[in-house]
Amino acid sequence: MSLPVLLDHLKQTAALGQVAGLLSWDQEAMMPQRGAAQRAEQSGAMAAVLHRRNADPRIPEWIAAIDRETISPVDRCNLDEAQRAHDQATRIPPRLAEETAKAASEGQRIWVAAQAQKDFALFAPALRRMIELRREEAACLAEPGTDLYDALLDQFEPGARSAELLPLLESLRPPLVALREKIAEKTAPAALTGTFPAEAQLQLAKTVAGRIGYDFDAGRIDTVVHPFCSGTAGDVRITTRVDEADPFNCLYCTVHEVGHALYAQGAPDPFLPAADHCSMGVHESQSRFWENQIGRGRPFVDWLYPAMTDAFGALNLDGPDALYAAANRVQTGFIRTKADEVHYNLHILLRFELERELIAGTLDVDDLEETWNSRFERDFGLAVPDAGLGVLQDVHWSIGLFGYFPTYSLGNIYAACLDKAMRRDLPDRDAMVRAAETDALLEWLRDRIHTKGRLLHAPALIEQATGETPTAAPLIAYLETKFSALYDL
Amino acid sequence: MSLPVLLDHLKQTAALGQVAGLLSWDQEAMMPQRGAAQRAEQSGAMAAVLHRRNADPRIPEWIAAIDRETISPVDRCNLDEAQRAHDQATRIPPRLAEETAKAASEGQRIWVAAQAQKDFALFAPALRRMIELRREEAACLAEPGTDLYDALLDQFEPGARSAELLPLLESLRPPLVALREKIAEKTAPAALTGTFPAEAQLQLAKTVAGRIGYDFDAGRIDTVVHPFCSGTAGDVRITTRVDEADPFNCLYCTVHEVGHALYAQGAPDPFLPAADHCSMGVHESQSRFWENQIGRGRPFVDWLYPAMTDAFGALNLDGPDALYAAANRVQTGFIRTKADEVHYNLHILLRFELERELIAGTLDVDDLEETWNSRFERDFGLAVPDAGLGVLQDVHWSIGLFGYFPTYSLGNIYAACLDKAMRRDLPDRDAMVRAAETDALLEWLRDRIHTKGRLLHAPALIEQATGETPTAAPLIAYLETKFSALYDL
Repeated sequence: MSLPVLLDHLKQTAALGQVAGLLSWDQEAMMPQRGAAQRAEQSGAMAAVLHRRNADPRIPEWIAAIDRETISPVDRCNLDEAQRAHDQATRIPPRLAEETAKAASEGQRIWVAAQAQKDFALFAPALRRMIELRREEAACLAEPGTDLYDALLDQFEPGARSAELLPLLESLRPPLVALREKIAEKTAPAALTGTFPAEAQLQLAKTVAGRIGYDFDAGRIDTVVHPFCSGTAGDVRITTRVDEADPFNCLYCTVHEVGHALYAQGAPDPFLPAADHCSMGVHESQSRFWENQIGRGRPFVDWLYPAMTDAFGALNLDGPDALYAAANRVQTGFIRTKADEVHYNLHILLRFELERELIAGTLDVDDLEETWNSRFERDFGLAVPDAGLGVLQDVHWSIGLFGYFPTYSLGNIYAACLDKAMRRDLPDRDAMVRAAETDALLEWLRDRIHTKGRLLHAPALIEQATGETPTAAPLIAYLETKFSALYDL
Repeated sequence: MSLPVLLDHLKQTAALGQVAGLLSWDQEAMMPQRGAAQRAEQSGAMAAVLHRRNADPRIPEWIAAIDRETISPVDRCNLDEAQRAHDQATRIPPRLAEETAKAASEGQRIWVAAQAQKDFALFAPALRRMIELRREEAACLAEPGTDLYDALLDQFEPGARSAELLPLLESLRPPLVALREKIAEKTAPAALTGTFPAEAQLQLAKTVAGRIGYDFDAGRIDTVVHPFCSGTAGDVRITTRVDEADPFNCLYCTVHEVGHALYAQGAPDPFLPAADHCSMGVHESQSRFWENQIGRGRPFVDWLYPAMTDAFGALNLDGPDALYAAANRVQTGFIRTKADEVHYNLHILLRFELERELIAGTLDVDDLEETWNSRFERDFGLAVPDAGLGVLQDVHWSIGLFGYFPTYSLGNIYAACLDKAMRRDLPDRDAMVRAAETDALLEWLRDRIHTKGRLLHAPALIEQATGETPTAAPLIAYLETKFSALYDL
């Protein structure tokens, strides 16, 4: 009976992986500053434990002894995931894993310094080294003859190939550039202004989180510098941040992380790999759906407006329509994380293009800043004034995250596909959202996404959930409709 | 070079042990309730990892290859501790370890129910089972011919033997009973009464913690049901509790945990076993010293009185003398955790007597409640009204903690020894405490206790620190002097 033995091994490994995740959460949300050196040792020791478990030579023996035809599809997926983790652990030489971890830690440190000085040249050597290491790792993982970039992408988006992703994502560019240009000719609506006390913002954020289904008995909310969501099943913690001048920041950051958390709280099993999230793109679809399609949609603002006046007193905006317009102000800017829905995917497309070329070796690091700036101007119509507002703005590449950026846009694409299908299945969707009674929406996502684990690759899962092959069309239609109405295009 | 390899192994094991400690802290202070089932798996997986590391067959090989004569005393201690942990991991059969863990979890559950119903008979079978398991474990660990109880005691108080502990602890009983009886004839001073807002209590507790040297950059304070201290070196977290009717509760609980934390923050190395605390008795001496000798002493109340009126407004007690008397009210009661300094050790002596007899098999579980009650009346002069106020009041035995209780009294004994020596070395001690400027006191403890690790057994460490063999005399003298003055005996 190799299957129960393998499954028990996987379960224990997953439990230890959750411990490593808790260490990260604690480091950002709780740990005192002088704990950093010990924490590095603790995290390193946990990584070594996990590596040893994934590299265990009994894993391929157990797998070989199991007849795939006699087991359930779920267990076939568990087997595949065990093999995948084993390959990852055994194909990458320990020396390379160590060097990459060190380069990531060093790279981030240098990136912080370079960003502060807005000087890309300071960062270039570290980036070059990281690209070499990522290419080396990709070569260890890639099947012969396949693309190096795809081997990196596959870690975040299983089964995805850039040759397929490219036309999907690139199809966003022309309509988004056109939309951006049309909006630029119009006058922006009034912004929300004032001072909004942190306590009241956090209280409102928690109220919203509870209304849309976040289970506080299976999670908690804390504040950090860079918010994230961590954990699974019965213990899914989110973090948020507060800017007293901008209540949308805390609100939509929280709703975004709650979207991730709802997916994780709905996992069908806390430990089995088959029950894990389908892909980062699908994870992002859940956060974007709640943040944008729900949170930034007109129906929700009917509930939000009185909730905000209760929380903060009278606003400078008179009624839900004005608040809705303020929450959806479009402004061409340089920074991805501050981008509105119209600009966001243009930021991603730029990074996706550049990182593929960097990994392929067709773009040299020395030419990166200039290429960034010229392509930014092509898509955004603005000249980048300095590297801090350009090529140095994101942490990702400094820590070796190549192949991650496209999952953000996949999330937006999938969120729009899901929203379209949900509106078809739930004709009262808007009325429910208007009352912030969204149980039926959550149930729809639970049934079709959250409980499905990773048995299917993302496009197949979305197709199964919606009845349609995922394309960018629903996202484009959603954005064009929404912003045409808002900006009277 | 076996030594560096062994030390690296020990360091990684210690780092993983700290991760397990963080899981426990998180469970009490942060974890959402629905995370419990996953946490049990996570903790179990970590325990298995730690067990495998301690049982690693290479450890005795490494040790055998090292020439003890050529290494430092610190490394000889590291070797001994590695051997000790290896013995513990290999002598106890996995089946016994599992059964004990299960019986502890089950035992605690049954104890909670029995306590709620004040019915010892409900708990007796679980206790009987736990005693069998502890005897079995003790038999695995004990050197041939030695006492089973001592094998359990040794886990908390390395090197201690009950034959030596017995006269030391028993010497407390006659003077404490006499003191208790004399005080009982006097009128108790006025108590502190009122309502004291939780926020103000926590703020005061944090102020006091900072004044006596707790490093908030290397720790944090949270509230829990049963306070504790966890961690070491750069990350030492304490927990406390608040009762709005009784500000002494939060205050002295915090000072007690800070005492533990100062010891841990002063550890000479975060990972090496030789740098770990000497014994539970010495750990408790640090908490008791700050809680009682400092916190409940007359000089500190000169600082505390205005701090409390600042925090809470006017008190019902007029001046430091009245506050000092209220903080040291003596009342014969049934519950150990609520006991004053005069009664506390009498509670411990009762448990120490009974648990030795339970492990030796000279006292049957069926006779425990009656024996408890008659001996309690002997020492306290009160008849126990029900098991909830008697034999069912402590969690310890339900989770298998036998041999732990005496460390509380050892802590009190050692604290008094240390205070006596410190007063000799620091003639301005009272003036410093009166101003809550206690850096010199902390430095004295750092030099003599905190930085010494576990190279010496507790009695030798205390003798080295104080210049005198530890006895109960300083504690008795301290209590008789203090309470004679307070109660005009």
